[in-house]
This record gives sequence, C-alpha cells and structure tokens, in this order.
Amino acid sequence: MERTLGEIAKLIGGEVVGDAKAKITGLTGIEKAGPGNLVFARDIRYLREVEKTLAAAVIVPVEISKSSKPIIKVKNPDYAFSKLLEMEAPGHKVQKGIHPTAVIGKNVKLGKELSIGAHAVISDESEIGDGSIISPLVYIGEKVKIGTNVLIYANVSVREEAIIGNNVIVHNGAVIGSDGFGFAKENGRYYKVPQIGRVIIEDDVEIGANVTIDRATIGVTTIKRGTKIDNLVQIAHNVTIGEDCAIVAQVGISGSVEVGNNVAMGGQVGVAGHLKIGENSRVLGKSGVTKDIPPNSTVSGFPAQPHMEELKIKATLQRLPILAKIVQGLEEKIKKIGKIVGGIGIH
Amino acid sequence: MERTLGEIAKLIGGEVVGDAKAKITGLTGIEKAGPGNLVFARDIRYLREVEKTLAAAVIVPVEISKSSKPIIKVKNPDYAFSKLLEMEAPGHKVQKGIHPTAVIGKNVKLGKELSIGAHAVISDESEIGDGSIISPLVYIGEKVKIGTNVLIYANVSVREEAIIGNNVIVHNGAVIGSDGFGFAKENGRYYKVPQIGRVIIEDDVEIGANVTIDRATIGVTTIKRGTKIDNLVQIAHNVTIGEDCAIVAQVGISGSVEVGNNVAMGGQVGVAGHLKIGENSRVLGKSGVTKDIPPNSTVSGFPAQPHMEELKIKATLQRLPILAKIVQGLEEKIKKIGKIVGGIGIH
Amino acid sequence: MERTLGEIAKLIGGEVVGDAKAKITGLTGIEKAGPGNLVFARDIRYLREVEKTLAAAVIVPVEISKSSKPIIKVKNPDYAFSKLLEMEAPGHKVQKGIHPTAVIGKNVKLGKELSIGAHAVISDESEIGDGSIISPLVYIGEKVKIGTNVLIYANVSVREEAIIGNNVIVHNGAVIGSDGFGFAKENGRYYKVPQIGRVIIEDDVEIGANVTIDRATIGVTTIKRGTKIDNLVQIAHNVTIGEDCAIVAQVGISGSVEVGNNVAMGGQVGVAGHLKIGENSRVLGKSGVTKDIPPNSTVSGFPAQPHMEELKIKATLQRLPILAKIVQGLEEKIKKIGKIVGGIGIH
Repeated sequence: MERTLGEIAKLIGGEVVGDAKAKITGLTGIEKAGPGNLVFARDIRYLREVEKTLAAAVIVPVEISKSSKPIIKVKNPDYAFSKLLEMEAPGHKVQKGIHPTAVIGKNVKLGKELSIGAHAVISDESEIGDGSIISPLVYIGEKVKIGTNVLIYANVSVREEAIIGNNVIVHNGAVIGSDGFGFAKENGRYYKVPQIGRVIIEDDVEIGANVTIDRATIGVTTIKRGTKIDNLVQIAHNVTIGEDCAIVAQVGISGSVEVGNNVAMGGQVGVAGHLKIGENSRVLGKSGVTKDIPPNSTVSGFPAQPHMEELKIKATLQRLPILAKIVQGLEEKIKKIGKIVGGIGIH
Repeated sequence: MERTLGEIAKLIGGEVVGDAKAKITGLTGIEKAGPGNLVFARDIRYLREVEKTLAAAVIVPVEISKSSKPIIKVKNPDYAFSKLLEMEAPGHKVQKGIHPTAVIGKNVKLGKELSIGAHAVISDESEIGDGSIISPLVYIGEKVKIGTNVLIYANVSVREEAIIGNNVIVHNGAVIGSDGFGFAKENGRYYKVPQIGRVIIEDDVEIGANVTIDRATIGVTTIKRGTKIDNLVQIAHNVTIGEDCAIVAQVGISGSVEVGNNVAMGGQVGVAGHLKIGENSRVLGKSGVTKDIPPNSTVSGFPAQPHMEELKIKATLQRLPILAKIVQGLEEKIKKIGKIVGGIGIH
Repeated sequence: MERTLGEIAKLIGGEVVGDAKAKITGLTGIEKAGPGNLVFARDIRYLREVEKTLAAAVIVPVEISKSSKPIIKVKNPDYAFSKLLEMEAPGHKVQKGIHPTAVIGKNVKLGKELSIGAHAVISDESEIGDGSIISPLVYIGEKVKIGTNVLIYANVSVREEAIIGNNVIVHNGAVIGSDGFGFAKENGRYYKVPQIGRVIIEDDVEIGANVTIDRATIGVTTIKRGTKIDNLVQIAHNVTIGEDCAIVAQVGISGSVEVGNNVAMGGQVGVAGHLKIGENSRVLGKSGVTKDIPPNSTVSGFPAQPHMEELKIKATLQRLPILAKIVQGLEEKIKKIGKIVGGIGIH
C-alpha cells in the first residue's frame, strides 16, 4: 500500500480533515500503530489511544471533527476499514478444479468454477454449487446440499443430508450434523434415540473452527442467514439460531433452544434446553441462561438476569464480608442495648 | 409412515385409549406437532403442551389414563418413542468393504463385514472387529484394538494402543488418546512428562463430536460400559468414568478424577483434579467441583455443594442489595437508639 | 523395567535412604501403586499417601529424610520421575520418509530425516525442517514454515502463512491460523473483516487436541517459547501468550489479550478482550477475567480478583442465608427496642 490520505478517503467515501497528502504505507490496529500507518477509531475513547501512537492518520466517525492527527470522517469506521482491508488483502487464491486424489461418490452434482481439494471425500448424491471451495481432507456426507461460493476449510465434516446455503464459510475441524445427544433410559441403561433430522445453514453464515452443530432428532437444527459463530461453540439438536446473530467462542446452546434475530452472546455462555431468547438481546460472557429472555434484553450472571440487577448484586457482593462484620457489630450493640433497656425494667 | 394408532400400539406393546383407528403419518417432537403426527409426553406437564397442538395422538406413561387426544399408554414413553423412530428411520446405510484409497498398515487384523472408508488410515498392528465402520478420513494409530459393530465417524483420530469395545460410537473430530497435560517444572521451564499410558473405551459408549480423551501418564484412562459423552467434552489423563454416565457438552474433567456409575453432569461443568464423584450423583450445569462428592448427591454452584444449599444462597443473593440497605437502616437506627439510651445516663 | 533402587538412584542423580538393593519392576502413579513399583511424592502429604500403598520405594524431595519405605532423595521429584519415564518409555517410533499417498505442493522445502504420513497434504511454498513428523491426514497450508523436530499429530490443520518453531508438538484436531472473529456491522448485518495476519508458534510449545488458535486480523497472534496449551483451548486473533505459560483445558482468551511470561491459567478460564495479564500470575480455574491483572497476582472468581478477597467473599456467601435471618431478627428486636425507647418518651 502506498497511497495518500486523500486517495484513500475517496475509496471509502470519507472526508479528510488535515493533510490530504499524508502518505499512508499500511493499515494496522491501534496497538501496533507506527509511522505511515492508517488506523481506525470507533469512538473518541479509541481516538485518544490512537493520538498517543505514531500513526499517520485515523478513520473516525462523522461525529468527530478534529484530532491531533489527520482524519478521514466516515459513517461507519469499522466497515470502512474492513473494506480497505479487503482491497489491500492479497486474497487467498485457491486453484479451481478437482484434485485427482479427491474421492467423488455416485450421482454427485458439481457446479462450475469450484475447487475440491486433495483427499477430500464427497459422498453419493451430494450437490455442490458454483464457485464453492471444498478444501483438502474435508468430508461431505450423502445427500448434502451446498450452495454457491461456499468456503469449507480443511478437516471439516458435514454429515449426511445437511443443507448449506450460499456464501457460507466453515472453518477447519467444524462438525455439521453430528447426532444429537438423545437417549432414553430403560432399566438403568441409556438407549440411543435415533437422530433422523438434519441441519440447515442459511446464506452468509460463518462457522468457526472445531464448532459442533448437531442434527435434529426429528426435524431441523437451523442457523439462519447472516449469523456468525466463533470457535468451539456447541449447538445442540433442534436448536434454531435467528438471523444476524453473533455467538462468541465456547458458547454452549442446549437442545430445542430458539434464539431470535440479532442476538449477541459473549464467550462461554451456556443456555439450558427448550428456552427462548428474544430478538435483539445480548447475553454477556460466561452467563448461564436458565429461563426465557425477553426481546431487547441485556442479561448476565448465572442464573442470567437483567445486567443492571446483576451488577448491583455483584457490587454488593464485594462488600459482603464487611456487611457481615457490620451485622456482627450490630448484634453486639443490640445485645448491650437490650440489656440496658431491659435493665430499666421494661421488656 | 402410514399406520393406525392401534397398529403402532402393538409395535411398542402399549394400550390405546381413544380412537385406535386414528391415522398416523409421522413422528415428531412437541414443538412441531401437526395433523397426523404422533408425539410422546414424558409426564402430565408435557401432555398439557401436546394438547395445545394439532397432534393426532400421544404416547403417555401408564399413570396417565385420559387426554383430549387419543393416547397409547406405555411404561416408558421415551423408550417406546425411540424404538418407533428406529423402526421408521431410514437407517444410514454404509457400503461394506475397504475403499481402495484407504491405507492399511502391516499386520492389521480386520474382521468380517466391516467398512473402511475413503482415505482412512489404519496403522500397523491394529485390530478392527466384525461389522465395524471406520468412516473416511479417520486415523487409527498403531496397536489400536477396536471391537465389533463400532461406528467411527469421519475425521476422528484414535492414537496408538487405545482399546475400544463393542457397539461404540465415536462422532466426527473426536480425539482418543492424545497426550495428558503433564509437565515437570525445572529451572523455570516445563519439561514434558512422557504419557505412556492408554485409553480404554468399554462397550456401548458414545463419544460426541470434537471430544478429547487423553491417554494416561502411566496406566489407563477409562470410560466404562454404557456411558454417553456429548460434544466438546475434555477428559484428562488417568480419569475413570463409571458405567451408564451421561456427560453433557463442554464438560471438563481434570486428571485422575474418578466418576462413579450412573452419574449425570450438565453442560460446562468443571471438575478439579484427583476428586471422586460418587455413584448416582448429579452435577448440575456450569458447576465447578472442587472436592469429593458423596454418592447419590445432587450438587450445583462453584464451589459445587448440595443443590438445596446452593439454591438458598442464590435466592438470598438476589435480595442482597436490599439486605445491605436494611443493614444500613439498622445501623442508623441503632446509632440513634444508642444516643438515646446513652442519654438516659447508662452505658 | 528390572532394576535395583540403587541403580535407579544413579540414573537420576539421587541419594538412597533404605534398601538400595530393593528390586523395582515398574514406575506408576500413587493411585495404582503395588509391589515392585517406584512412585514419586512431590511433598510430605503425597508421601503419606504412598506409605499407605504397597509401593516398593519412593522418589522424594531432598528436604525429606525418612519414610517407612526406601526413598531416593532428589532436588525435583517430578522432573526425576519424568526423566525415568523417558528412559523406560518405548518411544513412539515413526517411520521416516514421505508416504506415497501424501500430496506435496509446488516449491515445498523439505528437510532431512522427516516423516510425512499417509494422506497428509502439504501446500505450495511451505517449508518443513529436519526431523519433523507430519502425521497422516494433516493439512499444511500455503507458505507455512515449520521448524525442526516438530511433531504434528493426525487431522491437524495449519492454515496458510503460519510459522511454527522447533520442537513444537501439536495434538490431533488442533487448528492453527483460522480466521479471527471479526465483523463490521452495517445496516444491521455483519460484514467480514478480512483476517490477513498470521500465527507464530515459537520453539518448545505444545498445543493440545482440538485447540483453536486464530490468525491476527493484521499482524500476528503469538504463542511464545515453552508455553504449554491443553485441549480445547481457544486463542483469539492478535493474542500474545508469553513464554513458559501453562494454559489448562477449555480456557478461552479473547482478541488482543497480552499474557506475560510464566502465567498459569486453570481450566475453563475466560479472559475478555484487550486485557493484559502480568507475568508470573495465576488465574484459577473457571475464573472470568474482566480487567488487567498485575504481575505476580493470584486471582479467581468472576469478575476475577485477588484470590484471598474472593475466598473471603465465597466463605461469607455460604453464611448468607443465616446472615439474612440474623438481620431479620435484628430488625424485629430494634422495632421492639424502638417502641420501648420511644415509650420512655424520647424520640
């Protein structure tokens, strides 16, 4: 990269305040910002951090009008920076075509311009759409349907009958369509409940590395359009995750849970079975959800409750040992007072 | 499926109350129940839910004698429904034989009627019993012994010398026999403690997707007969899990823990090293177990304690901010009273 | 193994107290110790446990001078025992050479004496150093650099441009270099932020089974020399883990966290984004770290705080229901006293 700040502003539709001729030689994050670097600041707090660095210039939201550094004002600095990265990124080029070591089953329908990597296994009666990339060592089960421009990384397993939409990304080691954890107990032993449902992954979903998504017992486990799932997340059988959700790493969602659209869950959250999490809700990291969450909520803690309640409790909890001492002190005082008052002859 | 309720009752040894000629066209869960569907209700609470749906009929426990819907009374509705699913499930048929791309090492003993999938790797001196299925892209290490009718899904790794019994299922991406996490610190650096033990998985065990089970440092890590392990569970070196246990997703069990028979652990539980968890105990989801648990206990929380105690504490905790205010109020009152009482001339 | 205690003491540079001619037929852990076995005891507490077993002899720290069993005194029993295990371990021998089914890309640089297993895929322009072992079914991406004497187990994925040092061990199913979880929200939808950085794993690092380590958005995610990572750990984009750290199973570390040297984290810990954890700190199991941790700290709880504070709070918490009752009792007493005192005509 070797551009002036003015040229970059044009690319992302922003307005320069300061030296438009400043030379930008690279994009970077705030932590590593040095001379020649362009960074972005989501808000004034981040801008203050940037100003302490040697960064050459900053992309800022339109509300910010000045800085000690040259700025580009845009509506959405995250998005603008992301678009710049896309322009600059070398882009991971993958060879088109089917590697001679790939094993392709019977009655497989393959689209155009796709790539099937070395030692990939594509089972009978599956379909893969135009422009999709099946990386080396991927397993695609029978009757799986994969849309167009899908990118599946190495060592992923997609079990039989799963349906994956368009523009989906699945990271290495993820498992789609494993059996749900369903057993019937009879005479003290567990008997497997057949898991004959499937998984549907809609368009524009991204699934992290080593994620596990179980097929439904009967029916469908669904991840809806645009949802992004981080690494090592567990999605149990018959779960529905709404559109445009963000599920951070190591979250576990139990069977038959329904998550509304536009929900965000922090890392290591757990959700008990059969619950409903309303749309636009946020479940903060490490929470344990044990009952339904209404739409537009922000919850935390275990059991998860409105975050403001949880904060109050956590704050008081810090003072709990002092509180206990105060109560002990009061007890003693009251004993004394009781004696005194009793000593007056009353009680 | 296209059967009368009476025909189905015969299949599962149940008694019909209501229209035995009712036509059943499919099995389903309560959430999705529609016309023609047969569902099951574990108890009266679930039956009430079913009655709100358009389901055609319900399998219920014998204690229930009537419903607004036709019913089939059986001893164990879960189990009966599971058996029905088995009869109806298409069954995932796998081609017998050894795929030409599979790599089979030296001195490997292979049983009859088995299936070894594309690009599977079976290392030297391993054994695989009759009727077992080794899916594509599976790695079986040296001297591994696998029993009969075992089903190992794609992309599983079984490290050297592991022993797997009969009728075991291992889901995609699971790792059996990875090194235990053992290091000796010397001069500020960690040195690897050789992990020369093995893993033994007994009959009828099921292991979830992306589960990790470490080999013992010396000796054996054992999963006993009939135990079911959900996805993304971590079992450390030298652990013993008893018979007929159910370990839900993302549980982590530290080194040398001994879990008794018939124990159930909820999702995201953690168990510290060298502990004993008594038989028939239940460890509720997200608990952190820090000391031995006696048999027949139900524990929760972190540190895990008898669930009733934990519930009491959690309930009081909700009132903690109010409690703190009450105490503050008492302090002030006592101050006043103290002054007054002191003012009488005593104290 | 068939050696006298005296012979073994020589091997590990220890001093025998007791019968140096005692015959040792095997090494084992305390739990399984029987006749002929040599075990080690880290301290007097473990020694007492050993003395209850039938073990033939014990390796103890030099501070201990006697026992009811013959002992070998050494500076560091863990380390001495580990060295003995190394001498006795059969050692997992791997055949050198490149398996004919391995797929090797263009312009790959391969060192001497290395092993590339069946169905491994080594992509274009990657490098693998002398003596390294790439197990079957491993995926190595483009331009990956792997040092000498590295051991990568089956079904591991290493994404493009990762750099792995010398003497590194990567267990089965681990993923190195998956995309960071980075999205920009625009008009209610998430857009992928290109993840164009890389992962650097320094010398002597060990990475557990099914671990996920994300590449940086820009720049580097780094695991420094000597650090050991247990199974199912998540390391997000742009994280730096210092030297000689130990990260136990199922820990999740969010984006841009910096962990100092010699830090230990217990299982299932979560660390929020952009935090700094000072060197020599210990974060106890299941903690949730929400702010910077100074060097040399021991923290626990959620939010994580100095462990002694957390212990005090947890202890008081156990008494909380009683405390609530005491407060209720005080309220009543004060009401009475208030009436009495008020009754005297004051207030």
